[in-house]
Amino acid sequence: MEKRLVEDKLKLGVCYYPEHWSEDLWEDDFKRMKDLGITYVRMGEFAWTIFEPEEGNFSFDLFDRAVTKAHEFGLSVIMGTPTATPPAWLTEKYPDVLNVAQDGISYQHGARRHYNYNSENYRKLSSIIVTQMAQHYSSNPAIVGWQIDNELNCEIDVFYSEADHNAFRKWAKEKYKTLDNLNNAWGTVFWNQTYTNWNQVYLTRKTVPNSPNPHHMLDEKRFISDSAISYAALQADILRKHAPNHWITTNGMFKHIDNHRMTTEILDFYAYDSYPNFGRVIEDHSEKPLRDRKWSWNLSVVRSISPNYAIFEQQSGSGGWTTRLEQPSPKPGQLRLWTYQSIAHGADMVMYFRWRTATKGTEIYWHGINDYHNQPNRRVKEVEQVSSEVQQIGKKIVGSSYQAEAALILNYDNEWDGEFDQWHGPYATKSKDAWIKAFQYNHIPVDAFNLHSETTVVDLKRYKVLIYPHAAIVTKQQANLFSEYVQQGGNIIFGCRSGYKDETGQTYMKQFPGYLSDLVGVTVEEFTRVAPFEQVPSINFKGAHDIEANDFNEVLQLEKDAEVISTFSGAHFEGKPALVKRNDGLGSSYYYGGVFNLDLASLLINEFELNNYQEKFELPEEIELAIRQKDGNDYTFLLNYSDRPQEIVVKKEFRNMLTGNQVCGRVTLEPYDVLVLE
Amino acid sequence: MEKRLVEDKLKLGVCYYPEHWSEDLWEDDFKRMKDLGITYVRMGEFAWTIFEPEEGNFSFDLFDRAVTKAHEFGLSVIMGTPTATPPAWLTEKYPDVLNVAQDGISYQHGARRHYNYNSENYRKLSSIIVTQMAQHYSSNPAIVGWQIDNELNCEIDVFYSEADHNAFRKWAKEKYKTLDNLNNAWGTVFWNQTYTNWNQVYLTRKTVPNSPNPHHMLDEKRFISDSAISYAALQADILRKHAPNHWITTNGMFKHIDNHRMTTEILDFYAYDSYPNFGRVIEDHSEKPLRDRKWSWNLSVVRSISPNYAIFEQQSGSGGWTTRLEQPSPKPGQLRLWTYQSIAHGADMVMYFRWRTATKGTEIYWHGINDYHNQPNRRVKEVEQVSSEVQQIGKKIVGSSYQAEAALILNYDNEWDGEFDQWHGPYATKSKDAWIKAFQYNHIPVDAFNLHSETTVVDLKRYKVLIYPHAAIVTKQQANLFSEYVQQGGNIIFGCRSGYKDETGQTYMKQFPGYLSDLVGVTVEEFTRVAPFEQVPSINFKGAHDIEANDFNEVLQLEKDAEVISTFSGAHFEGKPALVKRNDGLGSSYYYGGVFNLDLASLLINEFELNNYQEKFELPEEIELAIRQKDGNDYTFLLNYSDRPQEIVVKKEFRNMLTGNQVCGRVTLEPYDVLVLE
Amino acid sequence: MEKRLVEDKLKLGVCYYPEHWSEDLWEDDFKRMKDLGITYVRMGEFAWTIFEPEEGNFSFDLFDRAVTKAHEFGLSVIMGTPTATPPAWLTEKYPDVLNVAQDGISYQHGARRHYNYNSENYRKLSSIIVTQMAQHYSSNPAIVGWQIDNELNCEIDVFYSEADHNAFRKWAKEKYKTLDNLNNAWGTVFWNQTYTNWNQVYLTRKTVPNSPNPHHMLDEKRFISDSAISYAALQADILRKHAPNHWITTNGMFKHIDNHRMTTEILDFYAYDSYPNFGRVIEDHSEKPLRDRKWSWNLSVVRSISPNYAIFEQQSGSGGWTTRLEQPSPKPGQLRLWTYQSIAHGADMVMYFRWRTATKGTEIYWHGINDYHNQPNRRVKEVEQVSSEVQQIGKKIVGSSYQAEAALILNYDNEWDGEFDQWHGPYATKSKDAWIKAFQYNHIPVDAFNLHSETTVVDLKRYKVLIYPHAAIVTKQQANLFSEYVQQGGNIIFGCRSGYKDETGQTYMKQFPGYLSDLVGVTVEEFTRVAPFEQVPSINFKGAHDIEANDFNEVLQLEKDAEVISTFSGAHFEGKPALVKRNDGLGSSYYYGGVFNLDLASLLINEFELNNYQEKFELPEEIELAIRQKDGNDYTFLLNYSDRPQEIVVKKEFRNMLTGNQVCGRVTLEPYDVLVLE
Repeated sequence: MEKRLVEDKLKLGVCYYPEHWSEDLWEDDFKRMKDLGITYVRMGEFAWTIFEPEEGNFSFDLFDRAVTKAHEFGLSVIMGTPTATPPAWLTEKYPDVLNVAQDGISYQHGARRHYNYNSENYRKLSSIIVTQMAQHYSSNPAIVGWQIDNELNCEIDVFYSEADHNAFRKWAKEKYKTLDNLNNAWGTVFWNQTYTNWNQVYLTRKTVPNSPNPHHMLDEKRFISDSAISYAALQADILRKHAPNHWITTNGMFKHIDNHRMTTEILDFYAYDSYPNFGRVIEDHSEKPLRDRKWSWNLSVVRSISPNYAIFEQQSGSGGWTTRLEQPSPKPGQLRLWTYQSIAHGADMVMYFRWRTATKGTEIYWHGINDYHNQPNRRVKEVEQVSSEVQQIGKKIVGSSYQAEAALILNYDNEWDGEFDQWHGPYATKSKDAWIKAFQYNHIPVDAFNLHSETTVVDLKRYKVLIYPHAAIVTKQQANLFSEYVQQGGNIIFGCRSGYKDETGQTYMKQFPGYLSDLVGVTVEEFTRVAPFEQVPSINFKGAHDIEANDFNEVLQLEKDAEVISTFSGAHFEGKPALVKRNDGLGSSYYYGGVFNLDLASLLINEFELNNYQEKFELPEEIELAIRQKDGNDYTFLLNYSDRPQEIVVKKEFRNMLTGNQVCGRVTLEPYDVLVLE
Repeated sequence: MEKRLVEDKLKLGVCYYPEHWSEDLWEDDFKRMKDLGITYVRMGEFAWTIFEPEEGNFSFDLFDRAVTKAHEFGLSVIMGTPTATPPAWLTEKYPDVLNVAQDGISYQHGARRHYNYNSENYRKLSSIIVTQMAQHYSSNPAIVGWQIDNELNCEIDVFYSEADHNAFRKWAKEKYKTLDNLNNAWGTVFWNQTYTNWNQVYLTRKTVPNSPNPHHMLDEKRFISDSAISYAALQADILRKHAPNHWITTNGMFKHIDNHRMTTEILDFYAYDSYPNFGRVIEDHSEKPLRDRKWSWNLSVVRSISPNYAIFEQQSGSGGWTTRLEQPSPKPGQLRLWTYQSIAHGADMVMYFRWRTATKGTEIYWHGINDYHNQPNRRVKEVEQVSSEVQQIGKKIVGSSYQAEAALILNYDNEWDGEFDQWHGPYATKSKDAWIKAFQYNHIPVDAFNLHSETTVVDLKRYKVLIYPHAAIVTKQQANLFSEYVQQGGNIIFGCRSGYKDETGQTYMKQFPGYLSDLVGVTVEEFTRVAPFEQVPSINFKGAHDIEANDFNEVLQLEKDAEVISTFSGAHFEGKPALVKRNDGLGSSYYYGGVFNLDLASLLINEFELNNYQEKFELPEEIELAIRQKDGNDYTFLLNYSDRPQEIVVKKEFRNMLTGNQVCGRVTLEPYDVLVLE
Repeated sequence: MEKRLVEDKLKLGVCYYPEHWSEDLWEDDFKRMKDLGITYVRMGEFAWTIFEPEEGNFSFDLFDRAVTKAHEFGLSVIMGTPTATPPAWLTEKYPDVLNVAQDGISYQHGARRHYNYNSENYRKLSSIIVTQMAQHYSSNPAIVGWQIDNELNCEIDVFYSEADHNAFRKWAKEKYKTLDNLNNAWGTVFWNQTYTNWNQVYLTRKTVPNSPNPHHMLDEKRFISDSAISYAALQADILRKHAPNHWITTNGMFKHIDNHRMTTEILDFYAYDSYPNFGRVIEDHSEKPLRDRKWSWNLSVVRSISPNYAIFEQQSGSGGWTTRLEQPSPKPGQLRLWTYQSIAHGADMVMYFRWRTATKGTEIYWHGINDYHNQPNRRVKEVEQVSSEVQQIGKKIVGSSYQAEAALILNYDNEWDGEFDQWHGPYATKSKDAWIKAFQYNHIPVDAFNLHSETTVVDLKRYKVLIYPHAAIVTKQQANLFSEYVQQGGNIIFGCRSGYKDETGQTYMKQFPGYLSDLVGVTVEEFTRVAPFEQVPSINFKGAHDIEANDFNEVLQLEKDAEVISTFSGAHFEGKPALVKRNDGLGSSYYYGGVFNLDLASLLINEFELNNYQEKFELPEEIELAIRQKDGNDYTFLLNYSDRPQEIVVKKEFRNMLTGNQVCGRVTLEPYDVLVLE
């Protein structure tokens, strides 16, 4: 079942921590929120010690007063369960709840997320606090929903406590039944790693040198994901039982969790924390970096989990901890731009992080809408503007769906395997980056598509074109699915390093690309990494002769009725096939024996007629185009990410939904400005 | 009370380790020292096992013979307490004395400084050995003074043994009385870090991810400083009691110790170990790096502790350990230059490290005056020259005071807070560097001024100009002090990120710059880091239009009768105030919404008439000017740090104190040469 | 006694892991090996759990079937003892067998080489499995020899388990007898490290800051080497006893083992694992990097252990682990080129690693001859060609000796001391690199010469020229040996930092270069590192005036009848001697007060008439020349490492041994091609 947020109009909210502030401030704060047109306030998620100051002793006074006060001003409250930060009394009394590094050294109280998901004590104590809260708030009219924990797997996404080792042993036993099966799956015959008793089985530990068994590592990621989901489910079950009228979500999106499965199984919809200004501080020396616009891709992934989703933390000021991540302030207009970025991609609720900048602790530099001084400022004014605009458009746009005819395929197995496998993971990152840019700069909306065990050809057929850049792990069943998709009219593009691994991460005793070979009509004759200190070969395509064939080269050999559309030069395999197309049934497949770059992706994208926006607009590269559709109506978002005015041409008559004016002809978008057209 | 070294003339000394060398060498060594004009010899500080070969068994024979022999040649002995290096028997028997890393792993015997200050066992065993030595040597006519331990907090300046955790808990209890107070001071409401029992309180521990509570961190530094001072006091008390006729000092200067307070409370004066050739190996890619000349600033800080001080280790050869810190040999003249650098800034005693290069251990490449081979060499000859010169000038110069009309303000709270706070600490480092260079290259002597809880306006008024580049933590009391200073005629300069924090490191709920706002007449309208990948804005000042406004921009808003003297360009806050001056009473204040660089500091410095040397000299940038004054007489030092001859113009008649010649008109200083004029 | 491999002709082999593959594949695999002309197959070395699935329960079935099957196809089997990878049951039951990091944290099951050499349990269990295997296979006609363990000290070459600490204490006691001796040797008087009870003695431990006693460190390396050899000897003794007709070797070459002594004492010959394509991924920003050709030097070192040796792993595909070391595929011809590189330098047996690429585990990207898919490929074809050529030349070449008139001196003491001593170790690395290149690019064969305690002048006299770039540790005995060598007609070249240390790593109380001073006729007047941020001086030599005197400068002072042949410029020691030659008896010595670079080494090399190949060939730099000689016949190898055709001139009539054709005049070597001439 599709898990999507259901609202009656677009909603704005803020994150607010009543426990941080003098109670004198609350009334004014809530009143100002109301005046700003804010309807949701999130609270509670770091307040375990407030709720349970000592074990078994519960206290709801502070939050009861805050919830009541918020409700007086018409605000609805989203309550967070406080398990991301266990109390000091808890970790001191039950040190087994702590997370532990791979070398056996415990993390301790003093920051956040220092617990593990498998400690019996932690699960028990979490159940108790969540039960208490659910019971207490289930009938409170201010409360509408719950956030489970906060940012699962943020900060740290590996776990090696004794409880984790024990749970993993049990998990492995359930999965493999026999040690023979486990030994086969992990290929333990290599380097004599064979297990002869279950008590020898652990999560990966400190090895000489730091290179554990790769198949074991892959299962470790699966186990971590299962552990996190199981821990969230523990809470979700309690909330469902005791607060059946409230919705349940959690805010992501971090590594080593199958967020899709988690959402399907236990949540009502998925929520995301969006901080596009990381794009100003994360190193990105690639060609034409996307910076904050890269977050559009993150939102596409979020959308693949919940077509209509919530933003639980929308960046509203400069960000950073005392010790790291130092970000600049948003430029005038960027706060608004990023809000529309979220909405354009499917958000029906946007909550700003946070109402007021914290004055204490590690996050005093994650600036909220309000500054420490609580005086009016530019960011509050921007929220005011957004809020008034959202009033205009909120009813129409809410519930509408983002439109895309192409998708990049994601798959947790390949993501997790590629994290440590240097022979496909880094290529996946590079190729994804190239494709995202090609779609953005060509104004073609794109989805993320999560390939999982129950994916059907009907799911695939929602797209004209699918791109699966480096599908290292491909099962026979998946290969069949892709063939069916192509025969029924789909088009699919693969890059090198595809199809050579099975689900354990072991390699097939087959020619590359394994089970995909039939579909794409090639085998790989020869392959090599492009090493440092070597000349990079190139390929020709559509008249271009100098497209770098960087990182990895697979020399293709035609096995079927495939057509060579590109060959290598500048290597000993000069003139050999590099890019091959094969028509099959109503569709086609492409296989490129390399890692995609922006040049090649941009050329390939034009092989297909995708979202033919050219009839409606002429757009410079700096503008993102997004379309949401409901009841046959298109709502078009044009977002200017650049610090310069951008001129566009509107070729048909549109209505500017934010101003009510008609729009046609040459239009200038100011820096960071936004158009929403219908 | 000012703690200054009192000597009757300038003195030279050497560090000598009799236990390292065959006893056959001692007589010749001491004789040659005497012949060189050396009067002090330091010994004993790494010899615990010699003094106490097994627990409770003491032996003074070796050092008695050495001290007696030195005294035969007229040398006075400074004795070091040997606690920097506990014996192997001690750490093996009492492992609780060892220092421990934050993750809980102990340091072990094998280098130095592996103990902690709070172990009861270590304090007891230290008391015993120091008592024994003090009693034994109190009436020895050769001994004149004591060095406590060696280089406190060198190598490592954090401590996490169980004894430290326990002592910190006690320290916190004494400071805060109640957990409520502690929770408030550390802002533990953030991320649910609230402590509900004192047994939950520790020094910072391994957290997820490595970012402990910043207010906790700040207190940890204060605690470390208190621990070190308390440990030194333990020894000082014993020495005062048993050797009342000897002076007491220790040799610094390392992080996480309030050296000013330590000196005031327990020492007779402060001593420093000066190794300017670190300036050749420490990475410094800044504009016009100062290299060895940067040590002049270090000496200014030393002078702020003791106006007349001792150098206990003056670099006399190439330096480095076997494994790191590899330095070149001093060039001909540099040993002499650095000696005068020390003297020019206030040293009345200079001890060379060391008499002869060690032939064993980690420091075989910290070359002494003599080489391994003990044959005459260039460095010994340079010491000979220095010594003969010092005979000439020693009586006049001793006790004279360095003259400066400007000072940079230092403050331990801001230094320690800024160590981990990336939003002001790195700016302080950059701005300090810019100002030091501006003073050096403009030949304006500058002091360091330590702002502490008992600083009065009288203290401040010793200076025409004070510079406090990024005064993040500013209390109301301090702001008042600065206002008084300005009203009474002082001038003070602040940069961005000033006044926004209280003494806990929490931010005020005020507009920037907090309590300073009244004085400087501005508030901060808007601010941002200058992120990577962004254009750096610039400011105009005194006709220059291209001064970079790097790192951080605060857009100023006039609140009072302040005058805008510089505005921003190249940003969305184009034309807004960047640098503002405000006259108040007899003085003025400047507030710059940015991080200082050399261009700006050099222009600002000329706003004031400081040490008007131009009537006396024309000097190229390469020359440092320093003046010591006594009884109305000026002693002028001109130091050539460059490897080229430098031409200067002497505009008045001076006497070259080193040669006795009159000096006037054009004079050439040879590479690394020195003039001392009266 | 010289330990050399004795074969009747050149042999090829492969590494094969029958336990990895379905038994169905064996027959075809062995048959194809046979058809390829392969005669040796190595197996068994990672199969402990196959042989001993539970403690004390032995099973030889699988390998018996494999050995028998291999033998059916005429293959001889080399059996590896499986101790590099202990079974999971073993480490789980006996955790004391695990290796431990210096900070006390254990390594665990999950990769390989996680055991320590000194655990009594591990030694006992190793003895049992080796005894079982030796007894079982001693009379098996297929088995010809044994490989002990696999790659001793690979991955990790330091060991800090409790067993190691205890064994080290015992080792130190045996070496030093008394603590006084130990304290003297380690210079523990420095920093009060004196040991007063043997229980205080450990291997180096975690120190503040990471800089343990250097003399202690040097002994630690010696101890590690002794431990490794003792562990190998334990196995060798068992194998000799139970399988007296089989030869014994092990495959190296890794750090912290005296491979020469090990081979002399316990092996029949030495074997090496050669992976030249590391040269494509290891950072090398030096001038004219050698890349894969650098492995020729490694082979020279191997040859210094065993003049005729085996390659137990010859790279046959692209290499790398899942997580690191990613290498490109060998280019067409490189597999063959590298095989001849091994043979040219003295290999009489070459085993390819591996028969087929692993489909599971950490090494799925260490490609073998065959790909996963087991279909014919280019690499198998290359082996076919090599094999057919080796049939032609194998009988003639086998047992012949590589011819070199020059050698670089290696010495374990200096290598181990220089590992952490930044004042000579890094210079040794740089100078070695320069000399190797100078020999390669000038087509002069060169040997490695291991200087050890029993080296005689007769050993030295095998060479016209010896180069010992930075002989930091030089004993009086060694200095005498070099003098004798020169007097009897030898020529020897030293660089700076020579002769200043004794065998403990302490410095002599002598002028540099210590005991070498008499021989080279100089002392060092002054010396300095060339620091960063300083101008690099230069020297003149043979008309060149701009040879950089990088890294370190020693200013020489003539003490005897030496001749200055080069002086410094660009420093304060302008014009002072930099390079001095002294004739003595029939020979000469050179002393250069610096670190060698390619320019200088290339000029110095021409001071001597070495291997006058010019009468026979004109060769471009890209070609390596190597000559093996037997019974008065020269076999000349010309190897083209470049990716371009190279033209050479053959000036005398030769026979191409691979084709049987006569060769004379202009000849073109294709990329990666090889000529073997007689």
